[in-house]
Amino acid sequence: MSECNNIYSDKKVVTVNGREYQWPTQPTVVVCFDGCDPEYIEAASQAGLIPNLDKMRSDGFAGKALASMPTFTNPNNISIVCGVSPNVHGVSGNFYFDRETGKDVMMVDSTPVRAPTLLSAFSRAGAKVVAITAKDKLRKALGKNLDGIAFSAEKANEATETENGISNVEALVGRNAPNQYSADLSLFVLDAGIKLLETTQPDISYLSLSDYVQHKHAPNDPEALEFMVAVDQRLGKILSLGAQLGIVADHGMSDMADAEGNPRIVYLSDQLDREFGAGNCRVICPITDPFVRHHGALGGFVRIHLMNADIAIQDVLRFVRNIPGVALALPRDEVCLMFEVADDREGDIAVIAIKGVALGASETDHDLSQLSGVRLRSHGGLTEQAVPFITSIPININPTHRLRNFDIFFALLNGAI
Amino acid sequence: MSECNNIYSDKKVVTVNGREYQWPTQPTVVVCFDGCDPEYIEAASQAGLIPNLDKMRSDGFAGKALASMPTFTNPNNISIVCGVSPNVHGVSGNFYFDRETGKDVMMVDSTPVRAPTLLSAFSRAGAKVVAITAKDKLRKALGKNLDGIAFSAEKANEATETENGISNVEALVGRNAPNQYSADLSLFVLDAGIKLLETTQPDISYLSLSDYVQHKHAPNDPEALEFMVAVDQRLGKILSLGAQLGIVADHGMSDMADAEGNPRIVYLSDQLDREFGAGNCRVICPITDPFVRHHGALGGFVRIHLMNADIAIQDVLRFVRNIPGVALALPRDEVCLMFEVADDREGDIAVIAIKGVALGASETDHDLSQLSGVRLRSHGGLTEQAVPFITSIPININPTHRLRNFDIFFALLNGAI
Repeated sequence: MSECNNIYSDKKVVTVNGREYQWPTQPTVVVCFDGCDPEYIEAASQAGLIPNLDKMRSDGFAGKALASMPTFTNPNNISIVCGVSPNVHGVSGNFYFDRETGKDVMMVDSTPVRAPTLLSAFSRAGAKVVAITAKDKLRKALGKNLDGIAFSAEKANEATETENGISNVEALVGRNAPNQYSADLSLFVLDAGIKLLETTQPDISYLSLSDYVQHKHAPNDPEALEFMVAVDQRLGKILSLGAQLGIVADHGMSDMADAEGNPRIVYLSDQLDREFGAGNCRVICPITDPFVRHHGALGGFVRIHLMNADIAIQDVLRFVRNIPGVALALPRDEVCLMFEVADDREGDIAVIAIKGVALGASETDHDLSQLSGVRLRSHGGLTEQAVPFITSIPININPTHRLRNFDIFFALLNGAI
Repeated sequence: MSECNNIYSDKKVVTVNGREYQWPTQPTVVVCFDGCDPEYIEAASQAGLIPNLDKMRSDGFAGKALASMPTFTNPNNISIVCGVSPNVHGVSGNFYFDRETGKDVMMVDSTPVRAPTLLSAFSRAGAKVVAITAKDKLRKALGKNLDGIAFSAEKANEATETENGISNVEALVGRNAPNQYSADLSLFVLDAGIKLLETTQPDISYLSLSDYVQHKHAPNDPEALEFMVAVDQRLGKILSLGAQLGIVADHGMSDMADAEGNPRIVYLSDQLDREFGAGNCRVICPITDPFVRHHGALGGFVRIHLMNADIAIQDVLRFVRNIPGVALALPRDEVCLMFEVADDREGDIAVIAIKGVALGASETDHDLSQLSGVRLRSHGGLTEQAVPFITSIPININPTHRLRNFDIFFALLNGAI
């Protein structure tokens, strides 16, 4: 499928991946509120801390939408900017195991994205388009073929006209690029988006935050509430600049620790090695990348590749399905059917944990030292699939439409779905 | 929404519930192969017992499709004849608890079906339409507003021209109406469909079988294989009469017994009563009807209604999610979003079991005596959602379309989806 076949525009309608988008009649901003489980908004709203979000919820549209599976950052950000599910764009996590070559393939740059983005399509049709991400690795994918501005907060100081369509970002925002592991990383994204709205009035802005805060803090923690206040103030600023605004999340967030605060983890590789022999079942944790085992690398979704043809998939399925903490184990064809993921980037078996449990490979693969006293919070499974879907304008939504987070641009630009 | 607004026809295209169906150019037969997990077809095919199904699989299209949730008979049969998901037609099981009136409402006749069926629409546009079901209760729903023939094998001897559009069915088929609990109930449906094809050449036939055999027998049991042979012979007869044929199932089937043959059951009501006080959480098992507790009434999906406003739904969710055997517990808004079910016919919480486990209400509600030596086999959850989707003609299916069992008429009549 050629990408060119998927883009068509006549300055009134831009068609991307089979969906027709109306040309924006006012600056249109979508914020991907990384890891913003609906509970964060509920908690902050009940505390009376987010007047701008509350106003959007009462004046515009507010509901829940389904994120793409697995509920990780990359598949969902790419789905949102492509307007379609992962079986079209192909991004299934941070990396995948290529069955043909037997190699791990990174999915953190633009190479594996095999569908055009609507950001690229609008930019090529003449719209002023901006994409700002928290981390730089995602920027490369979101900025694919984008004829506009695309940079990350993480590497704001390295942005160049040639590579990013902009330079001197730190001067624009008025402060230095923040630390990659900080709440300010997200706020910098929003502040940069606001400055560009003020100065260049982009037609379309995509602002993708970081879930650093949500991984560390529960919805009612002071740090989480403080972060919600800071985000809400910036959303108010965006609205005051005359933009129409849509907010979705890439995934929710679940507490995965027990009453004593110990992480609840199923080390699937260890169990499979004991049952079927060492190395016969390879467990891929697509929340992480294959080399750096940072942040525990633990989520609610993993893939199993059978490395020995003598092992029957039905035996592995039966075994995994009866491990306490496992909600669902599906063969590849069924996981592709159920969750619209790409066949060639799935394992032989997909495994999804129950809420509150993380799936890991081998105990030795995961460095839990960084948790030190902090409860494990993560995502990846079915119970982080329902995310907020909030727009500043009313949207006429068919009540029988299965609303997805990647419908957000369509809803904002077309006013109906 | 008026039903009339949902039907339009000009003798070339019939539009029902927003989908356009081409007028059949040859007799079109859809068989709903009740409880036909893909494993039944695999087992019989590997044993070389189903040449007609094998020929369909090689010459036409064969894949898997998703059934509607919960994976029970009524929601899926109605979805198939409406061509849409349960949030449009409203049927969510055999009965539901009406939150407004506090009463159990049966869903075994046509009353709760709030969308038109394509069978009715085609019949009113002048097509000769036949609907034959195994049990009579489903016939009333499938035959709603049908201007044609609609009867059940169970009550074949009671069919009248006025009520069913046909009489003397036993004479037509050449034998008496079979026992409701027999393999012959399904075969009688097929035989009656064949006789009508021979005598009156209906444009559209819908033949809905019973899962009596699959509830009792695993795919490789001699009884199951024998049943597959009998069905396959009749499918061959249908094809030899010049019909185009589509086969789907309403749900799969899972073994729910342990190594010793004892049923694996979570009695949710008993656990909830102990935790939250007796009667505060009402558990609805929509696989059954509210009065007759036959067949164990056990499946992989139940609903919880909170009967006491002092009980916090989050506490119940947390408790249920950590019961061993529970895969997923979702609040109503999320289960509606995820599975396209009707809000007013759901509970406060939907609970789905892991594969191989049944959910029950209270131990005293379920009569297991009928199992006597037979392993419990049932359905209702996510792991019975992937079902066979087989057509005698090639279908051009978009590989990124999330194929549903209720796409079968659309695929057969339009040749593409």
